Amino acid sequence: MANPSLLILAGDGIGPEVMDEVKRVIGWFGDKRGVVFDVSEDLVGGAAYDKHGVPLHDDTMAKAQEVDAVLLGAVGGPKYDNLDFSVKPERGLLRLRKEMDLFANLRPAQCFDALADFSSLKKELVAGLDIMIVRELTSGVYFGEPRGIHMEDNLRVGINTQRYTEAEIERGARAAFELAMKRDKRLCSMEKANVMESGILWRDVVTEVHADYPEVELSHMYADNGAMQLVRAPKQFDVIYTDNLFGDILSDCAAMLTGSLGMLPSASLGVPMANGRPKAMYEPVHGSAPDITGQGKANPIACILSFAMALRYSFDMGAEADRLEAAIESVLADGARTGDLMGPEGGVPLSTTQMGDVILAAL
Amino acid sequence: MANPSLLILAGDGIGPEVMDEVKRVIGWFGDKRGVVFDVSEDLVGGAAYDKHGVPLHDDTMAKAQEVDAVLLGAVGGPKYDNLDFSVKPERGLLRLRKEMDLFANLRPAQCFDALADFSSLKKELVAGLDIMIVRELTSGVYFGEPRGIHMEDNLRVGINTQRYTEAEIERGARAAFELAMKRDKRLCSMEKANVMESGILWRDVVTEVHADYPEVELSHMYADNGAMQLVRAPKQFDVIYTDNLFGDILSDCAAMLTGSLGMLPSASLGVPMANGRPKAMYEPVHGSAPDITGQGKANPIACILSFAMALRYSFDMGAEADRLEAAIESVLADGARTGDLMGPEGGVPLSTTQMGDVILAAL
Ligand SMILES: CC(C)[C@H](C(=O)O)[C@@H](O)C(=O)O
Ligand SMILES: CC(C)[C@H](C(=O)O)[C@@H](O)C(=O)O
Repeated sequence: MANPSLLILAGDGIGPEVMDEVKRVIGWFGDKRGVVFDVSEDLVGGAAYDKHGVPLHDDTMAKAQEVDAVLLGAVGGPKYDNLDFSVKPERGLLRLRKEMDLFANLRPAQCFDALADFSSLKKELVAGLDIMIVRELTSGVYFGEPRGIHMEDNLRVGINTQRYTEAEIERGARAAFELAMKRDKRLCSMEKANVMESGILWRDVVTEVHADYPEVELSHMYADNGAMQLVRAPKQFDVIYTDNLFGDILSDCAAMLTGSLGMLPSASLGVPMANGRPKAMYEPVHGSAPDITGQGKANPIACILSFAMALRYSFDMGAEADRLEAAIESVLADGARTGDLMGPEGGVPLSTTQMGDVILAAL
Repeated sequence: MANPSLLILAGDGIGPEVMDEVKRVIGWFGDKRGVVFDVSEDLVGGAAYDKHGVPLHDDTMAKAQEVDAVLLGAVGGPKYDNLDFSVKPERGLLRLRKEMDLFANLRPAQCFDALADFSSLKKELVAGLDIMIVRELTSGVYFGEPRGIHMEDNLRVGINTQRYTEAEIERGARAAFELAMKRDKRLCSMEKANVMESGILWRDVVTEVHADYPEVELSHMYADNGAMQLVRAPKQFDVIYTDNLFGDILSDCAAMLTGSLGMLPSASLGVPMANGRPKAMYEPVHGSAPDITGQGKANPIACILSFAMALRYSFDMGAEADRLEAAIESVLADGARTGDLMGPEGGVPLSTTQMGDVILAAL
């Protein structure tokens, strides 16, 4: 059987820097564990725009459709801020999500014990925190038509459309219920059913899917209250299921709560391919961090943990994923820190490569 | 000249309980300060539905259009959760906002010194916090057409429309810049211009209005990053301007950060009437709190502070508003606490009426 295939799209800013460490980790799994991947690389975001004039070349899109999993670094940067909407770096990312049909975006918000002090929340509220946010990723206001800016009576009018079919809501809900079954069997669905009809449909469909997962305790919350509850008492949640736009905001809020932003990975999963593996893309939650680009300061852990998610969700190698995650926990427990993880007490931070070194050593 | 007029819509849940204390405060201003209001009362939300079958009677709507200011308690409750969308308690509130054209929703997120320990954030991050969020309140996805649930190929589809004209964005922006001029002269505008064209228009229009307020330092932030930054370091903000839906979520997030949720008022302002006063409605940020309704436990301070905002923004009585706010700060400093403000050390909480008593005494 052919080796599993990976397409690396390192992207912009610190993307390539953190991805270099992932490549070393991939190499380690090949050398030491006999887990060999066929790795190819290509451009996305501003890097693709610079070369091709578009943030994702059609050839790259075609490759992404063929591989077993895509690993993405980050896209965007001030250099591209004034580009036309249609060629902004983000469009490359959104095209991948949409054309690969990656409807279930899994965003764990986990607080690493060694880092609980970094949270802006009181330590007791976040220590041990372990939430899984499932964000619908291929529909909603991100992709709904009509959209655009047009003139009406000589005034500019900006329009976007929130549109959800029951099929779209349902497949994401199933993914969320399945995850809940493997965790603490609690699912909270968030929308604004009190003001949006799309939220009413969302609530109805999630409630219907619940019939197939009677063991899971289902609750519903308005998204504004969800934001409040995340800040007030995040540990009340197990799995959260919400739409593309609410998921964007609430998952970033939850990520920041953990104090471990430079540590958080994500997985975007689609429907199974012929080989049974889901279409999949893995990426860190953090962005391209233009302020520290090129300085060797970036924390590679979120990107490495994204590869761990790939091992778990694309390749059914849960034990190898556990091994990698344990190595990271152990270096953190030993005090290994990149610049973003330095407390006020100071000390000399590790560079991106040095963090890669200690993780490889721990492996 | 006729006395200024107030319409009290106490609404549901704890609404009537907290509003009773506001009425006593209004009485005090009449008796002791010669500031006499013509007060009338009516129903809104579930209370209106119970009597009229609609969450806001046309006669009530007409009265609201005539008075100088509306004071609203809270709407909603489990009893009404399964009502049809069109008659849900919230529709009464949304109709008031829309027909009174209350486009500028002012939501201060302030941390009361005496209560800084109640925040889930570390004390140093919130002590002294004083943000003003200006939320556009009469447009966006709350009111955009088309909307609803319909069938397509035998599947239900839920639709809502985010729609903003430049005029709508502009008038809210002016309100936000004006407030910034009276405060620390910093305004941060939040949208998702990286994925939504309505966000691009938002950013462009706010930038254009900035030309009239060169003294104000303007910044732009994506709403997801805004949620992160609110959690990470809320004191970086002075005034935030954002749309109806983002404002709903971000202002609740900010409110919860302060630890003073039962303390936070809001003002919703429209265009000036013939007498020069803006159309206006004032309401606490907290909801109807069905879990403690009828037990005399509710904290009336948010509702009383909403009346203080009315004194300031509708009646140009800044000094009287200061007086009322100072009385509240002083009772808090003296240790007066309703149940929601009790720490783990315990003690006997004040009832709603007792909190009213001590505030009146402090006045
Ligand atoms: C970069 C941007 C288009 C993207 C989004 O809005 O989805 C990002 O914020 C994310 O959450 O992955
Ligand atoms: C009650 C509800 C309709 C309302 C809203 O969504 O605007 C509330 O959450 C608010 O923020 O005032």
